[in-house]
Amino acid sequence: MFEAKFQTFDDTTSSDASAPRLAALRTELARRGLTGFVVPHADRHQSEYLTASEERLAWLSGFTGSAGTAIVMIGRAVLFVDGRYTLQSREQVDTSRFEIENIANTNPEQWIERTLSKSDVLGYDPWLHTVEGAERLAAACSNAGATVVALEDNPIDQVWHARPAPPVGPVTLHDIRYAGETAGTKLAQIRPEIARLKADALVVSDSHAVAWTFNIRGSDVTHTPLPLSFAVIPREGRPALFIDGRKLSNDVRHRLEELADVREPDSLNAELTALGAAGKTVRLDPRTGADALARLIKGAGGKATKGPDPVIALKAVKNAVEIEGARAAHLRDGAAVTRFLAWFEREAPSVRLTEIDAVMALETFRRETGALKDVSFPTISGAGPDGAIVHYRVTRKTNRAIAPGDLFLIDSGGQYLDGTTDITRTVIVGEPTPEMRDRFTRVLKGHIAIATAVFPDGATGAQLDPLARQALWRAGIDFDHGTGHGVGSYLSVHEGPASISKLGTVALKPGMILSNEPGYYKTGSYGIRIENLVLVTHGPFVAGAEKQLNAFETLTLVPIDRRLIARKLLTSDEVAWLDAYHTRVRKALTPLVDADTAAWLEAATQPLE
Amino acid sequence: MFEAKFQTFDDTTSSDASAPRLAALRTELARRGLTGFVVPHADRHQSEYLTASEERLAWLSGFTGSAGTAIVMIGRAVLFVDGRYTLQSREQVDTSRFEIENIANTNPEQWIERTLSKSDVLGYDPWLHTVEGAERLAAACSNAGATVVALEDNPIDQVWHARPAPPVGPVTLHDIRYAGETAGTKLAQIRPEIARLKADALVVSDSHAVAWTFNIRGSDVTHTPLPLSFAVIPREGRPALFIDGRKLSNDVRHRLEELADVREPDSLNAELTALGAAGKTVRLDPRTGADALARLIKGAGGKATKGPDPVIALKAVKNAVEIEGARAAHLRDGAAVTRFLAWFEREAPSVRLTEIDAVMALETFRRETGALKDVSFPTISGAGPDGAIVHYRVTRKTNRAIAPGDLFLIDSGGQYLDGTTDITRTVIVGEPTPEMRDRFTRVLKGHIAIATAVFPDGATGAQLDPLARQALWRAGIDFDHGTGHGVGSYLSVHEGPASISKLGTVALKPGMILSNEPGYYKTGSYGIRIENLVLVTHGPFVAGAEKQLNAFETLTLVPIDRRLIARKLLTSDEVAWLDAYHTRVRKALTPLVDADTAAWLEAATQPLE
Repeated sequence: MFEAKFQTFDDTTSSDASAPRLAALRTELARRGLTGFVVPHADRHQSEYLTASEERLAWLSGFTGSAGTAIVMIGRAVLFVDGRYTLQSREQVDTSRFEIENIANTNPEQWIERTLSKSDVLGYDPWLHTVEGAERLAAACSNAGATVVALEDNPIDQVWHARPAPPVGPVTLHDIRYAGETAGTKLAQIRPEIARLKADALVVSDSHAVAWTFNIRGSDVTHTPLPLSFAVIPREGRPALFIDGRKLSNDVRHRLEELADVREPDSLNAELTALGAAGKTVRLDPRTGADALARLIKGAGGKATKGPDPVIALKAVKNAVEIEGARAAHLRDGAAVTRFLAWFEREAPSVRLTEIDAVMALETFRRETGALKDVSFPTISGAGPDGAIVHYRVTRKTNRAIAPGDLFLIDSGGQYLDGTTDITRTVIVGEPTPEMRDRFTRVLKGHIAIATAVFPDGATGAQLDPLARQALWRAGIDFDHGTGHGVGSYLSVHEGPASISKLGTVALKPGMILSNEPGYYKTGSYGIRIENLVLVTHGPFVAGAEKQLNAFETLTLVPIDRRLIARKLLTSDEVAWLDAYHTRVRKALTPLVDADTAAWLEAATQPLE
Repeated sequence: MFEAKFQTFDDTTSSDASAPRLAALRTELARRGLTGFVVPHADRHQSEYLTASEERLAWLSGFTGSAGTAIVMIGRAVLFVDGRYTLQSREQVDTSRFEIENIANTNPEQWIERTLSKSDVLGYDPWLHTVEGAERLAAACSNAGATVVALEDNPIDQVWHARPAPPVGPVTLHDIRYAGETAGTKLAQIRPEIARLKADALVVSDSHAVAWTFNIRGSDVTHTPLPLSFAVIPREGRPALFIDGRKLSNDVRHRLEELADVREPDSLNAELTALGAAGKTVRLDPRTGADALARLIKGAGGKATKGPDPVIALKAVKNAVEIEGARAAHLRDGAAVTRFLAWFEREAPSVRLTEIDAVMALETFRRETGALKDVSFPTISGAGPDGAIVHYRVTRKTNRAIAPGDLFLIDSGGQYLDGTTDITRTVIVGEPTPEMRDRFTRVLKGHIAIATAVFPDGATGAQLDPLARQALWRAGIDFDHGTGHGVGSYLSVHEGPASISKLGTVALKPGMILSNEPGYYKTGSYGIRIENLVLVTHGPFVAGAEKQLNAFETLTLVPIDRRLIARKLLTSDEVAWLDAYHTRVRKALTPLVDADTAAWLEAATQPLE
């Protein structure tokens, strides 16, 4: 009845092969005179989701998280992960061969400083490290007295037999009805930025930025409609797009060639070398651009100036068409998720639903909208203790039956032509404990604090993040991830440059879409997260205001489980927000759902007592 | 009757001489083949308060703020200041010769990137720029295609005739009754840190850190009991203290020589060169250490590893004796400030008091405690529009009579052997307007939000700063400075590494003392700031807490003007905090003040209606 077409539940990884693979890699390192090698979770574009051909870290260690780095020395190996992945990494990795470090305690650079010595020669692949990352690596090695070497080719590729071929997913043009602006208009916005930055050309190394600029979408990467590609945009003259020609139909190629030279990826090296040899100044984003790009430009005699890629900032601010698309996508997606929640509440007490059942049902409801292109990431479906694993991915092995008394956390999203969604709801099966109610309500208070925040133009996500934590801090608890990330428009569900987190130093601008997702995780017991997407908007107008004020419009439209709320912990303003939100959800969704779901929705959106 | 002994009201600066001085500097630059030169507000130790001999920026431009940088090119000159100094700089500087830039809009590096070209050669004095500052300068010049040159000597010193001699203020030993720990104990804490950092030696370039380590105080700098000095602390063996011998009595010298070699500042170069030549790894704080220090070490073949000076972190966490000292100093200081406020309220309506009268009275009351060693900074005494100038310093020329209806802001502090204080109160003369009440109450709400904050161990000042702004943001207003800075123990009133500000990325630890000083400034009308010092403390204990929680204990004990409070804007929790604070203030101070002041205090600390 239900089926998942866009995600699998296989254990795609195992650490069984770690021992021989580590041994083979160490032999290769020794052959090259290296005493160590850095293995990041990265490709040449710093994509979040890697193609199978780029999964070197998973191949070596078994770890499949979306972020992590291993350092393999001759005598030991260490895997560095962030707070999201400390549990998962211990389960996936052979800890007799890999030490695990939480980067909040020791990051790779600190480890290098403390551990390496003068006799060490540490290699890295300059295509897989950003300019800044390579600088940090070099500084750490220098501080340790060790030598660092940028390698011509990746030693893992030498020992990885049966490495998959890179993908050649077909490219489509992203229709102006969804993109809102032509590629020509976008290039006309980018060129003055290049001039303002006093550069002769811009290297666009982030495939998302390339896709946005040229209004193309692809299918190289799971869950993100991304064609892996580079672009070089000169201040004047035709841009060049570097993309595997097998991805392009004749029609797409002709349309692209109206604006740009279309070349094979191999010719990027020649292009950068030519720019360098001509003494050109080339702008490169040191946070996303590969160290190898800067080396090519500088090696040929050019200048690589470092600073944010202006395309990233332009892309983050959605235009009016994209915003209308996001609203439409959230309405459609909200109806599907609400149908799921109604089904779940009906079925869960009687049938022993599993986490996988839930994923399949939710994906099916989304597919039945007729508009789903893909899920926007692998659904996190965690019952009881699985909910405490922040980036849990259910497999047939971990699949758990959802039992009465369980908190059930489900974090999912859809890719639609008009927008990308991302929503988390946490619901109770049966009766919650008072502790669950207390924790859920504190998470909700944080969620409402963000939803109702008012902040002056120029305020950053770092300045909002603490608001989401106040009610948790008062109880001596917290969550070990940011409060929100940027979201693309039929692009990546995790998009820069803005975020609501300690590291979110970019100003939030009207038109940006971010997630609002505080949580609480009790290891071994349960996880709670409440996530809506929000749009940064102008306003409110306040008499006597000296600053332009901004605020958030909540885009996601799905009920929040009222059974989990401890009413007495909420202020009257917070109750008013929740009741108004539920009224809005009911009015918006009722016309879109079946009768059973409508009845459930009616009950689920009643005002709090 | 009243007198200021520790501060003056002269116009110590004028921009009249800017034209010939700029011309002389430009001639000198041209002679050296430079097209530009950077003039920071800095000395070799990155001290905040400069000795007269180091006031190059004021000598050249007339600008006397505590932070700023000029860039002098052949054809133009620009002064970069932060938000505190945009008004003051326009008043002090000849704006026909210096353009003024707010660094929030354009910082020097951005200006360099945009303005300089390949033909430019920009010089800087590597003793006056930190390692990080010099790196940023070099990157900006590189991005602009310009050349940057570290100069052997400072061109301003060549053209500054009658430049004052450096000070040789006598050094005293800071008694263990105030310091709480011997220099030997402190060195025993520092050495393991050097080992942990894998360094052979640590260069202590910040004179405050040297003073803390060796328990010495001095009088080279106004308002900070600081002997300008460097130290080199090896992982093993005797440390070396580099200090002008004329500052040392025989007794002090002998006591210091029990622990360290005492050498002349000139011999620092030889020491660093020797460490470098021996291939040693020397730790240097790139945020405070001069670029010249790193150049000396590296030039001789050594390694300069960059990272926070561990002494700064040790110094920031006050020991039990320092904390008791701080409480005693604040009690004493609170009595003096309260005596001032009572006097002010008595006198202001009938006598036409001026801003200078207020400064002299307050300093006199502080001196009459018998314990005042100095004021901790020049008192900011601003009536009406002068209060809106964030770092206003009253002079005979600007001195304003305080009129009925004026808001009066007074920010001041004392240096006592047992502690350093810093307090701002804003009071009304006569009747406030409703707008003043609204603004004052919003500032107070921010102040209370910080005073009552509860946060997990590891939380940073950046995570608390937004709490101080929420009530202001709701009204479309804000303040253009951080919420709080660290404070030393009979040392600098501005102390790193922690701060409550956007840039406060250092974790707040129990034992740190910081200011809590949100404000609001209406240009041309009035300024409001409410500042107490707070101590980071352990606690509270909360059942079910998973994190160690920390909170603040307010140290400052002086009433807050109840006449300026719009009661209806406060929550009941906020009213409870204020009433409890006032009760505490009344009980603590009544035994310490005269009858008139006690009567005033009684009235001023009554609960809100």
